[in-house]
Amino acid sequence: MLGNLVRPDIQALLQNKDWKTLREAFAELDPPDVAEILEEFPVQDSVVLFRLLPRDRAAEIFEYLPLEQQTRLVQSLADEQLVNLLNEMAPDDRTRLLEELPPEVTRRALASLSPDELKVARQLLGYPEESAGRYMTPEYISIRPDMTAAEALDYIRQHGKGRETLNVVYVTDEKGKLLDDLKLSTLVLANPDTKVKDLNDGQLVSIPATADREEVVATFEKYDQVALPVTDSRGVLLGIITVDDVLDVAEAEATEDIQKLGGMEALQASYLGSSFFGLMRKRAGWLTVLLLGEMLTTTAMSYFEGELERALVLSLFIPLIISSGGNSGSQAASLIIRSLAVRELGLADWLRVLRREFASGLVLGCILGSIAFLRVVLWPWRQELYGPHYMLVALTVFLGLVGVVLFGTLCGAMLPFLLRRLNFDPATASAPFVATLVDVSGLVIYFTVASLVLRGTLL
Amino acid sequence: MLGNLVRPDIQALLQNKDWKTLREAFAELDPPDVAEILEEFPVQDSVVLFRLLPRDRAAEIFEYLPLEQQTRLVQSLADEQLVNLLNEMAPDDRTRLLEELPPEVTRRALASLSPDELKVARQLLGYPEESAGRYMTPEYISIRPDMTAAEALDYIRQHGKGRETLNVVYVTDEKGKLLDDLKLSTLVLANPDTKVKDLNDGQLVSIPATADREEVVATFEKYDQVALPVTDSRGVLLGIITVDDVLDVAEAEATEDIQKLGGMEALQASYLGSSFFGLMRKRAGWLTVLLLGEMLTTTAMSYFEGELERALVLSLFIPLIISSGGNSGSQAASLIIRSLAVRELGLADWLRVLRREFASGLVLGCILGSIAFLRVVLWPWRQELYGPHYMLVALTVFLGLVGVVLFGTLCGAMLPFLLRRLNFDPATASAPFVATLVDVSGLVIYFTVASLVLRGTLL
Repeated sequence: MLGNLVRPDIQALLQNKDWKTLREAFAELDPPDVAEILEEFPVQDSVVLFRLLPRDRAAEIFEYLPLEQQTRLVQSLADEQLVNLLNEMAPDDRTRLLEELPPEVTRRALASLSPDELKVARQLLGYPEESAGRYMTPEYISIRPDMTAAEALDYIRQHGKGRETLNVVYVTDEKGKLLDDLKLSTLVLANPDTKVKDLNDGQLVSIPATADREEVVATFEKYDQVALPVTDSRGVLLGIITVDDVLDVAEAEATEDIQKLGGMEALQASYLGSSFFGLMRKRAGWLTVLLLGEMLTTTAMSYFEGELERALVLSLFIPLIISSGGNSGSQAASLIIRSLAVRELGLADWLRVLRREFASGLVLGCILGSIAFLRVVLWPWRQELYGPHYMLVALTVFLGLVGVVLFGTLCGAMLPFLLRRLNFDPATASAPFVATLVDVSGLVIYFTVASLVLRGTLL
Repeated sequence: MLGNLVRPDIQALLQNKDWKTLREAFAELDPPDVAEILEEFPVQDSVVLFRLLPRDRAAEIFEYLPLEQQTRLVQSLADEQLVNLLNEMAPDDRTRLLEELPPEVTRRALASLSPDELKVARQLLGYPEESAGRYMTPEYISIRPDMTAAEALDYIRQHGKGRETLNVVYVTDEKGKLLDDLKLSTLVLANPDTKVKDLNDGQLVSIPATADREEVVATFEKYDQVALPVTDSRGVLLGIITVDDVLDVAEAEATEDIQKLGGMEALQASYLGSSFFGLMRKRAGWLTVLLLGEMLTTTAMSYFEGELERALVLSLFIPLIISSGGNSGSQAASLIIRSLAVRELGLADWLRVLRREFASGLVLGCILGSIAFLRVVLWPWRQELYGPHYMLVALTVFLGLVGVVLFGTLCGAMLPFLLRRLNFDPATASAPFVATLVDVSGLVIYFTVASLVLRGTLL
């Protein structure tokens, strides 16, 4: 929003090479706002703008840029700038950037890190992608259980500068084992002479470094904390995850799921931030797969061409039947995929869901089937349109819908479980994917019902 | 997860009326964990379990329950319990509960509040639904600009007990106008003699009370804060919103959007927490609407029955054509709906999106059309299946796909904008909704193309 307002001004200043005014304008703005403005400009311009920023602010602003733009900027920056930038960045944000960069740029980036930062970076990159380890920062404050509250606050005053968050401090033993976490406010409110080990503000909750990022989001949602500690299998504190990163992860997960549900590969960047060609690649792939799937409907249809020739009336209801199956399948799939994503359902619940969706599919099928039945038998021109056997046609449509809706609902509900079981993302069972699957089988169900009901009359 | 493990034990203790052991078991658990266990039990049991909780913990545990269960519990609690509970609850959580309750229960609930709490509750309920005002809590600490850091910390020590969050404190003038916000850690790290007005940890960002909740989420994501102040139009501090509520809102928004995208009404409760009947109502409604829409395909088909009779081969491609239109529409709709939801696109961007999606639809249509064209002309039994004019049939399928995919993409991309413009939720343009719309128009496009291409040969 802000970007749109000041963009023309900045464009003009850029053209006039009025670096002084530009520098002053940026100095007055908050880092997230500067980032928003930089986002609006092509890379070559934003490299120029980026050079105008004072060294200490550059890294902070950089952290607010979307990953895609960070990547492009890094590739255009001079070596010296890169060194400053990467060493100043928060380790968790840097990890995310390093895993995105093309291999040769990652090498150049790692080479520009100081030995200390390099050690941290290598360690964080050692955790599996999308695991808790990748999102943590080692910039926390740890205190000892036998300090008093006053001593702890003094310690924090001396060592706390520049840490990402001080809202929560961590109590560890001399081996680094996590004993407790304390809100900074608990320390401030406490009697200064109370020992840290006697302070208590709720049970300790920690996240294993190997936990999946969906699990991280679920834990934050459950415990309403602003930061949670990450530990290894022996309970040693490795780092902390802060809630601002979790909010970003939650939004990114939801965006990915929605894009996958819509039948495309998840985008790395935003819609407007993606190139036309990149967007086409992500979209055309799945559409082509779905088209190849849909070609089976052509094969199925040609198999039933004899039936169609004898009873052309059957063709009238084909779109109705297959779409209803697709719709009920999309519905069930979206419902189950989201419940799996927010950890409300687990793999173990599949049988419970199967039973419930069997009943749901049957009820929904009967409702839709009855409406369609009535539509056929009560239509004023039923004789002309559907012939003398319109009652049998109506019955075929009713039974066809019950079968297709039931099948669609079950497919939509069970596919996400199957995909999770096979370690794929359940959201791959997109609405279009389920619809395509149900289209082919829907035709088979419909024509099978028809041949049973209409045998001896139309067929 | 935890609930599943201890459920049988608790069931047994409940049956034996072993209140003592139950009370002890609950005393050892964290409030979110107790809430998770309570969720697993039917209302009558959870009312009993709830009575076992000590008064001070009951409200805290209650706040972690899902809204639906809170509502049912409130209706089953005795008056005295209700009084304790509602007066102990955090104002922001209470607001959300009060707006969910049936009117007669809301009256009973409001009557049980103390005069002070009643005033707060009425005020918060005065803001529009899903606005920032509904999510704020008045339990913040405000300090004056001329205090020193040490004085401010003393003040916080004296007045801070029981506030929802102390991670950020707010600097106001004597009229309550918000001047700045300071992290508690900034105060702790500061030289004790520094005046509050001379401390600065970043620019002040505030949210207007009338801001929509999507905007609240976007602001938190942009500024990475743990709490943000809410102000009225004159800049007076009304309350604060904490990030844990924002994370819940973000997840709830995404869940709603995904359910709507899947073609159903958004659920109030979780999948397993919803009754079968409730679930059916939310699902059958949209499916019925979609079925009624699909009936137009039957009408369209009967309109083209003459063409079908002369060239039955056309029927073979009907599912392929209409589904491809539906798929490309779902894809575009999901992409645009999510971009609108995360505020990456605004209403003003519609023309930019229209242009881009026009090009996308054309490219995607040509890709899919070419594949289908090749499928027809290279098929080994093309003569037997598609007749002597198979080249013309292939051309019809190609042009039909280009038209339908282009139309589907444009519908999917523009409908969300239209819905937002009309103040509906863009997510109502669900995948099934777009697919149904495109099915009907897809048939018309396909048969129109066919009658142009095949005139004089098959038609």
